[in-house]
Parts: sequence; C-alpha cells; structure tokens
Amino acid sequence: MPQYCYIEQPFTLESGETLPSLTIAYDTYGTLNEDRSNVIWVMHGLTANSDVADWWPHTVEKGKFLDPEKYFIVCANMLGSCYGTTGPSSVNPATGKPWCGDFPRVTIRDAVKCHRLLAERLGISRIHEMIGVSLGGFQAIEWMVTDPDIADNVMFCATDSSCSPWLAAFNKSMYMAIATDPTYGEHRLDAARKGLATARSIALISYRGPFAYNMSQRDDENRPDPFFRRVQTYQEYQGEKLCRRFDVYSYVRICESGDSHDVGRGRGGIREALKKIKAKTLVIGISSDILFPPACLKELADSIPGSSFRVMESDFAHDGFLIEHAKLDALMKEWRATR
Amino acid sequence: MPQYCYIEQPFTLESGETLPSLTIAYDTYGTLNEDRSNVIWVMHGLTANSDVADWWPHTVEKGKFLDPEKYFIVCANMLGSCYGTTGPSSVNPATGKPWCGDFPRVTIRDAVKCHRLLAERLGISRIHEMIGVSLGGFQAIEWMVTDPDIADNVMFCATDSSCSPWLAAFNKSMYMAIATDPTYGEHRLDAARKGLATARSIALISYRGPFAYNMSQRDDENRPDPFFRRVQTYQEYQGEKLCRRFDVYSYVRICESGDSHDVGRGRGGIREALKKIKAKTLVIGISSDILFPPACLKELADSIPGSSFRVMESDFAHDGFLIEHAKLDALMKEWRATR
Repeated sequence: MPQYCYIEQPFTLESGETLPSLTIAYDTYGTLNEDRSNVIWVMHGLTANSDVADWWPHTVEKGKFLDPEKYFIVCANMLGSCYGTTGPSSVNPATGKPWCGDFPRVTIRDAVKCHRLLAERLGISRIHEMIGVSLGGFQAIEWMVTDPDIADNVMFCATDSSCSPWLAAFNKSMYMAIATDPTYGEHRLDAARKGLATARSIALISYRGPFAYNMSQRDDENRPDPFFRRVQTYQEYQGEKLCRRFDVYSYVRICESGDSHDVGRGRGGIREALKKIKAKTLVIGISSDILFPPACLKELADSIPGSSFRVMESDFAHDGFLIEHAKLDALMKEWRATR
Repeated sequence: MPQYCYIEQPFTLESGETLPSLTIAYDTYGTLNEDRSNVIWVMHGLTANSDVADWWPHTVEKGKFLDPEKYFIVCANMLGSCYGTTGPSSVNPATGKPWCGDFPRVTIRDAVKCHRLLAERLGISRIHEMIGVSLGGFQAIEWMVTDPDIADNVMFCATDSSCSPWLAAFNKSMYMAIATDPTYGEHRLDAARKGLATARSIALISYRGPFAYNMSQRDDENRPDPFFRRVQTYQEYQGEKLCRRFDVYSYVRICESGDSHDVGRGRGGIREALKKIKAKTLVIGISSDILFPPACLKELADSIPGSSFRVMESDFAHDGFLIEHAKLDALMKEWRATR
C-alpha cells in the first residue's frame, strides 16, 4: 500500500485551472541515510503506479540497482493517474463524486510540479540518482531542465525530450477509438470500456514490436479456421485486463499529458533546454524499440552536455526495459562504476 | 475506368461457401504481343484498386519498369474490395441490395483463384513478370506456390509468406475499433464510419513509421495549446478521406483475407511451400518498414531457391514502395539486367 502526501492548498495547473487540493500517492523502499544522500527517485510509465517493486521485477532487490539496503527509493504515482494521486478517479470535492471527464487536462510540467511538492514534504532537496523510463522519462527530463540542481545523476531510458509526432499519432488513434465508444463521456468510471480496451490493444502494439509478437504469438500452421489468429485473443485479453485496473478518463488524461511534453516549448527549443542539464546523465535506448527508436535517444544524449549513451540489445522493443532487467542492471552498474 | 470480367457461375470459396457469380474489375496498359510473352501482372495493396497508374505514381510510364510501350500490364481489383470486383459493396442477387456484412469471408487463396480465372479469360497462360507488393505480395506468393509455372519472374516487395502475428495484432486492433462503433452491423455501406476512420488511423501508423511521421508532422515549439498536435488533424483527415472511398465491410473482409494468409497452412509449413517456387525471384525489403521488417523479407528470400534479396533504403517505412518509385525502378532494372 502506498503512503499519501496531502496538499491542502489549491494546485494551479499550467493551463491556469486549479485543483482545490492534491493527494500524492508514493512508495518508498529502504531508509533515508543521515545526510540524505542516498535518494533514488524513480518515475513510472503510462499505466504503472508508485510500487516499483511490483511493476519493475527484480530491480528493488538486494544487490540490484535499486538496492533497498543501500538506497532510499521513492516513486510517486503521477498526476492524473488512478493509483492514489489526484486524477479523474478521485472525488471532486465540489460534487462528492469522481471527477471522471470533468478532471482538467494536465501537462508533464504539472506532473513535475507534484514531484517537487512531494520532495519538499519529504525533506529531500537533493536526489542522488533520478531514473525516468518512458513517460516517467518525460517527467525526469522536464524536472532536470527546470531544476538542474535537484539531482547529481540521472538516467533516462526509452523516452524523449518531446512527445514525437509518431507517439502523438498512436495517442490520437487511441482517442479516436475511445471517442467511438458511445458510453464515453458518461459520468461513471466504467464508461467506454470497449474504447479503452481498443486503446490498450493499440498501445500494446507500440510496446511489443514485431519480433516480440512473432516470437510469442505464433499460430498453428494447421489451424482449422484460417481467420483465427492467436494474437486476437491476446489483444482482447490485454484490453479487458487494463479495464479491470484503469478507467478511461485517467487513461486519456495521462496520454494527453504525454502529448503536452516538449522541454523546449516556449523555451527557445529543445537543444537550448537540454543544455541546462548539469547532472551526470546516462541515456539508454532499446535496440528494437519502435516507440522511442535508439536514434532518437542518441539525439537526446547528443544534446545533453557530457552525457553517456548506451543501446541495450533486446528483441522486446519498448517493453525491453521491463523484461531485460538483468541487462539494465549491468548497464546501471557499469555507469555507476565509471562516473 | 476498369474493364470487367463476368463469371456467370458459382464461385466456391475456401470456406465451402459459394458466391452465385463473380465480377472481376481489371485494368490493362500497353498491348499484348503476338506470342503473349510480355505480360506483367501486378497485385495491389490493401485499399488500392486495379488502376496501377493511379496508385503507383511514375511506374506505368515510358522508360519505367512498367513501360506500357514494352509490356502488357494487368492489374485486377482483389476479391472482397470495393473497386469493381465482387465484394461487400456489390449487389447480392438474392436481395437486390449490397451484401454489406453478409458477404462471406474470403481468403488470399480465394483471391488467387480469381486472378487465375481472369488470366484464363484473357488467354494468358504464362506471365513474364509477376509483381506483388504488400497484400498483393501475399497473393503473388500464394499464386507462385500453387502454380509454379505461371510466371517466369516474380518480384515480392514489403510482404510476407504468412501474415505475421504482428500484422494480425494491427488488424485485431482495427476490428476492435470498428466493433466499438454502434452502427457497425447496420445494413448500409456508410455504417461505422467512425470505426473505419479509427482503423485507418491505426493502419497509417503501420505504413509510415517513426521517421516519416517525425519529418512531416513537426509541431511549432511555441504552440499555444500544449495538447494540440498537428498529427491529430492529419490522422482525422486521413480517416475521413478513407471513408469517402471505402466501406467498412469491404475493409474488414480484405483485412481478414490478410489474416488468413499462410502459404504453409495445411501444406507442411512455409519452408516446404516456398521450395516449390521455380520463377526467378527478387525479394525487396524496405529498410525502415516496421510492418514487414527487412529481416522477415530476408527470411522469405532465404527459403526461395535461387532468389535475390535487396534492401531498399528509405525513411518512408512501408509506404516507401509507393514513394521511392525511382529507387524501386533502379532495383527492378538491375534485376532484369542480371537475371
């Protein structure tokens, strides 16, 4: 179970709208040392939560790169999500009912503002190592650009300095699928389940890539029904599975926050913004990732002064960061040993 | 305008169902020579038609690889499509109304059976060169495996010997999007337009890939609305555009025929089937194609006796075969000169 940080003051969003108050759900592992110098701050991906040990297997373990015997690891559920931090599934104090579609749009900049409030509350003014993967990487990059002294070291994996048009096209296809569901817009958290399931099916394609699908979803070459493909059941199953743990309004708000991401927006461009990063930086791309191709991560690394860039070889595409924990562990330790 | 070939006999599908009769729409360019030795048979992709000169710019031109002064080029609209060949938008003689969702599912094997009927009617028993791109490649591979003497030369581009689980996952996401539209199933050709538009948005992602999107759909770094992305309008526009020229039932039937494709199905596997191809074969993969990655085309080529394999360098992913006509022209001519 996460812990909760309650901010009983209005929280102003980038859009100018305000939330009357804010709850931030977070998990910690290990113990903060006396000089508060052992903090690792992890930021999660799209549909994950604050429980890193749950969604990132074999990382929060003795001897691994998130060793709770050495480090004080913090992960907060992001703004707009449905795992405890204020979002569309939270109760709107004005109505006593969940916000649903009335919850305002939030940006990655708003999400980072939440992280900063939590760090303040926890008495953390300096992070030893920040880790941002996927959508968590959007937040990590934004945080490092706007507060370059917050962390000594930072690792960005399978992410980008802005949401690419390519990723925004996936998002748009998901919004179209959701808007096609006639129950979308109804004021209940189980609205638009068919739309949400389709969105998940689309998203999975972007996470898995051709090789992972072709390895794991092979069909019988003597299948009696030529139109039946094993992967069809898999996509349906994964869609239904997400519907059991996520609501459509939170899903849309989080994807939209992704659309908003651009560290260069209103700041003279991405290259100018990235120049501000002072922390020792490691950028990791996954060889088969189609959502964040390694070439884009190389470009990110090239714009951050003195950063290191590594490609993790994997056939698991974007999901490689979850599956190839051993390879990631090795890359993290190599980096720590040489920085 | 295409020409029409009318088969006034029942056409039995692989499923055992029969169509009462069959119309095949086709286009030809150039003149059949006296010994009928100058035939090029082109098979089109998912939503294209028999008018090659229209959908494949700068190919059916003097001096180009589909030179109508040298060759007699034939292209038939595939079974189940809505460009003249019998499909869901055709009139069901039993009801006097379009088939819509009542049109039976058809396989790639059924589509090839149509091509064979047309070739027979045209008096073509030997094809000089067969060309199959994308879904057209599925038909070309199937035809060459089941009738190895039909062509002397064959070129497969951006295609596969079976519909990969990866491609089937895209198809499934499209079916889910379409099924979410409450008007899907209604007996009218303009049913489920929102679903069809979403399906097109999903398909486009698979055709364009990250680099083409990121080149052509860049956003203004000072955009006032952080949630607005240029690509959103593009995806919507492309979805609506398809709805003006395609109906949802034809779209689903053609995608399903893709799902059915596996030259090894019931034939002892793909490798055994591909061994039967006797024609001189050129296999072309597109470097950035995520739908049919070059590695899969290499595997296809490796299974065809004596075939040649080339990778066409392009940032335009699957659509590269349409856009990079000059590169394709060069590859075709190099192949013709050396075979």
